Amino acid sequence: MATTGPGKPVSASTARGGHEGHGGSGAGAPARRSTIRDVARQAGVSVATVSRVLADNYPVTHTTRAKVLRAVRQLDYVANAHAKALAGTGVETIALVLDDITWSAFAQIGAGVEQEAARRGRLCLVCTTQGDRQRELAVVNLMREQHAAAVILVGGIQYTTEYRERMSRFARSLDSVGSRLVLCGRPPLADDLPATVVEYDNEGGAYGATAHLLSLGHRRILFVGAQEGQSTADGRLSGYRGALADYRVAAAPELEREGLFLRDAGLRAVREALREQVAFTAVFAATDMVALGALEGLREAGLRVPDDVSLIGYDDIPMANELTPRLTTVHVPYQELGRTAARLVLDRRDGVGGAEDRTRLSTHVVVRGSTAPPAPGPR
Amino acid sequence: MATTGPGKPVSASTARGGHEGHGGSGAGAPARRSTIRDVARQAGVSVATVSRVLADNYPVTHTTRAKVLRAVRQLDYVANAHAKALAGTGVETIALVLDDITWSAFAQIGAGVEQEAARRGRLCLVCTTQGDRQRELAVVNLMREQHAAAVILVGGIQYTTEYRERMSRFARSLDSVGSRLVLCGRPPLADDLPATVVEYDNEGGAYGATAHLLSLGHRRILFVGAQEGQSTADGRLSGYRGALADYRVAAAPELEREGLFLRDAGLRAVREALREQVAFTAVFAATDMVALGALEGLREAGLRVPDDVSLIGYDDIPMANELTPRLTTVHVPYQELGRTAARLVLDRRDGVGGAEDRTRLSTHVVVRGSTAPPAPGPR
Repeated sequence: MATTGPGKPVSASTARGGHEGHGGSGAGAPARRSTIRDVARQAGVSVATVSRVLADNYPVTHTTRAKVLRAVRQLDYVANAHAKALAGTGVETIALVLDDITWSAFAQIGAGVEQEAARRGRLCLVCTTQGDRQRELAVVNLMREQHAAAVILVGGIQYTTEYRERMSRFARSLDSVGSRLVLCGRPPLADDLPATVVEYDNEGGAYGATAHLLSLGHRRILFVGAQEGQSTADGRLSGYRGALADYRVAAAPELEREGLFLRDAGLRAVREALREQVAFTAVFAATDMVALGALEGLREAGLRVPDDVSLIGYDDIPMANELTPRLTTVHVPYQELGRTAARLVLDRRDGVGGAEDRTRLSTHVVVRGSTAPPAPGPR
Repeated sequence: MATTGPGKPVSASTARGGHEGHGGSGAGAPARRSTIRDVARQAGVSVATVSRVLADNYPVTHTTRAKVLRAVRQLDYVANAHAKALAGTGVETIALVLDDITWSAFAQIGAGVEQEAARRGRLCLVCTTQGDRQRELAVVNLMREQHAAAVILVGGIQYTTEYRERMSRFARSLDSVGSRLVLCGRPPLADDLPATVVEYDNEGGAYGATAHLLSLGHRRILFVGAQEGQSTADGRLSGYRGALADYRVAAAPELEREGLFLRDAGLRAVREALREQVAFTAVFAATDMVALGALEGLREAGLRVPDDVSLIGYDDIPMANELTPRLTTVHVPYQELGRTAARLVLDRRDGVGGAEDRTRLSTHVVVRGSTAPPAPGPR
């Protein structure tokens, strides 16, 4: 659930009164606004240290914290930053662009971006496009005009030439106004483009899920959710195939079932496989939503999970842990992905840190109740 | 899941090419942009009819639709509206402000606002505040500056004098720049304030849930999630008490348990009630999230749902239907709530419809597998 972030800059100045106003920085503000560099100089520490104290996201000694907070008070630094936010004038925004706000994984990324934005005194604006490129373009242009600190695009894509060209235009267009394109959970672009990339180990997670089933003794594993050309689905299928190969288990085309990342696709794929009498003892659903549908498909055929068929998902959305049995799945640190995306662009913007612009978070299998060794006897 | 809305205006002009641009309305645009009134005059229909055809949200005869679409083409009306969006210049936004994007009910409202905004050629920006008033104020001020079509505030609140004064300031401040405050799932303000209110029958839903349990024969019903002064919780508790009174069942203070609308609160409340040996045969959880925790609390005590204890939730989030047993709950039309909020403010803005500014959607009990008559014998 939501944590109310420490948000020191915000709460510190609440006492100044929450009345509305707009324009100007209010009476009593110094002629030139203090910057984070001024605070660092005054406190005798690095800019990165000031940022850490204000963001409260790294361990810092008490002495250092006290020095920084004293400098902050002396220079009225926090009050300045907050006065801007209060006035709604010049408050910086980070835009997050995704297909559908009701998808749990996307919402978790959004919560992560929001948390980091809040810690750093920014607002996060989430815009959903329903997969419509015209809406995506409209958002990017709007955010460019409004000089958003960054525009974060989230989720798997068809990795086509058209896509790469579109992202190149976005990257250059945002860069030209001092903003930044961030790709989150997507493959990187050409090296020379001004963009930040925050990935997770998509293929590795699928490899781990498949290896988990193989090590339990499963050899006929139905993969549900293949979508040729879709970056996330391709990575997951590739991890599945890689684990099979390493375990010297032949891949079988009839075990690779197509389907979008939707509940209904899982239901249909399992129904079809059962109707075609494809033999399998386990199902690897490409997302937890697909697993929900697969679970229904197995149940309506009278198959028990995990007694008759094992089931593993991918994403570890909150719902996975509420099912009966609890769903074994691949944990993707979606909130952390969002926090990292926001942190990298804000570090760059605030001139702290090493201006890192590419990172990859790891994934791991969470073993719960929906996987077990295969039942003896034919299936 | 997401529907790709009909979005006629957007898809119609996709053929014009998706290249970036900014400023101006592009070559070939007429000197004065056609308005919806021009289209209505040309087609010989009302402005409301044009809006309905474009939004595709009311039944309209084929003949009327054809007339309107012909006028739209003749006046290049759609292409104009879309050219603005393409350029990112002047594309109107609706802002949605909520506490936490990972709360299913809020995400559903967001999806509804987005769907209606997309149909009407607007962008929807979602901003989460983590319950921080300073962030709420910053968003409202930012959206005021950017002349957002509306700012929709979502979710229950402490209905204090401070709150009413804050909302009055927001309403007047937004109104002064032609924008509009919308309260969604909250009680109305004073009648003379320029604000739109979209509610649902919160108390009626709780009355229905309690009456469902009473009619099954339950008399000792644990209410979990009381929060004095919180508008949503108060309404639900009030519906619970009202149904008890109508069934001539005495209310009992030990059956009304406090707790936030969180999973953990449901778990703790049930554990406490069991430890205190409070007798009950059913649990009414004030939200489905609270019900998840209550379910865990009952299970860890060895109680079966619904054989030993019945359980009913509230909200009908997607997860409710995935539980074992499927959760009986109160359906709140959250997506429709979002769509309605967006529709009312856009009707007002576009000068169509009757400028309705207050509405209330109904709620109803969805009976699934978690409620049954009470078990015979003492409990």
